[in-house]
Amino acid sequence: MSVREPVPAMSAALKGAQIYFGPFLVTSQVFHLTPLSFALVNLKPILPGHVLVSPRRRVPRVADLTAAETSDLFLTVQRVGRLVERVYGASSLNIAVQDGPEAGQSVAHVHAHIIPRKRADLDHRGGMDAVYGLLDGEEGDLRRAFGEGKEGERMPRPKFPTVDNEGRPPRSMEEMEAEAEMLAREMERMEREVVK
Amino acid sequence: MSVREPVPAMSAALKGAQIYFGPFLVTSQVFHLTPLSFALVNLKPILPGHVLVSPRRRVPRVADLTAAETSDLFLTVQRVGRLVERVYGASSLNIAVQDGPEAGQSVAHVHAHIIPRKRADLDHRGGMDAVYGLLDGEEGDLRRAFGEGKEGERMPRPKFPTVDNEGRPPRSMEEMEAEAEMLAREMERMEREVVK
Repeated sequence: MSVREPVPAMSAALKGAQIYFGPFLVTSQVFHLTPLSFALVNLKPILPGHVLVSPRRRVPRVADLTAAETSDLFLTVQRVGRLVERVYGASSLNIAVQDGPEAGQSVAHVHAHIIPRKRADLDHRGGMDAVYGLLDGEEGDLRRAFGEGKEGERMPRPKFPTVDNEGRPPRSMEEMEAEAEMLAREMERMEREVVK
Repeated sequence: MSVREPVPAMSAALKGAQIYFGPFLVTSQVFHLTPLSFALVNLKPILPGHVLVSPRRRVPRVADLTAAETSDLFLTVQRVGRLVERVYGASSLNIAVQDGPEAGQSVAHVHAHIIPRKRADLDHRGGMDAVYGLLDGEEGDLRRAFGEGKEGERMPRPKFPTVDNEGRPPRSMEEMEAEAEMLAREMERMEREVVK
């Protein structure tokens, strides 16, 4: 495999660095770089301007990131979001992290999807929410397209169902408050453990 | 409307503060508080442990947040994610921000959804990706449940379609590199404007 050249506008910043997204060398697809994060374009964007932002250190989970990495990653998401919203003439953004395999992650390297949105942009593909199904589809495609993963190896992904949101009753205030109380206590306990 | 008491385990931290999520007083549903962010439980969680993290300052878009607010928000997402994953026995997390109305946002106050995931947790409701459709459904429900928005006022949300991910061909390396190059230049231009 030949090593692709970095993006010319990025050359100075990259200074010969090799940027990896999971096992994949993506240097030539990187358009923004910080000391701790990078942004790259997508092989099969769901919508124009769909890009990814990752930490430079290859770790699978958000919980694996240091505080400095977490801050830098999401400040980069904020900055890149502003960029693609403007460049692609959008008015909103979907920002999504599939944090772990059970959440749909298929490349074990933290990455935030940023997807510029505009009015009625997915009407012909099933409406506003279709973006998420397309997102999970892309993930598998991306991994395969780089030469990893075989058709048969991919997890079977059920097609999108009709989901009845209206059918479930909202919880009572008492139930919500009891859960909030439990979580507040557990948070206190977790933070005490971290200090120890 | 009576003012609900804060969660007992939170009382000291709250010190009589009134926490608003959009126009809604949610003090009694808040389980974690930082100087700039708060975490609250959900009226209709998609899955057990589905919670929200918001900046204390009520702004609609991620781009409206200061760097300090952005860092604090996502460090809080990281910490709360670790908490709910553990408390609810999950192994992954979906983290999603609907940043603007065209991305499905219905309460104009930045909020990150955190949804603990475990293997096959949505199989009976349509599979892994059903989480996102449920998510957008909840949003509308939450707003209505607090007494804002009427049935007829809600945007019609199309049901989930069968989306053909495999049908679209991946882009060529040349096309990706050209886009990366354009975005690198636009980022440079945007950052020069910010400095001015």
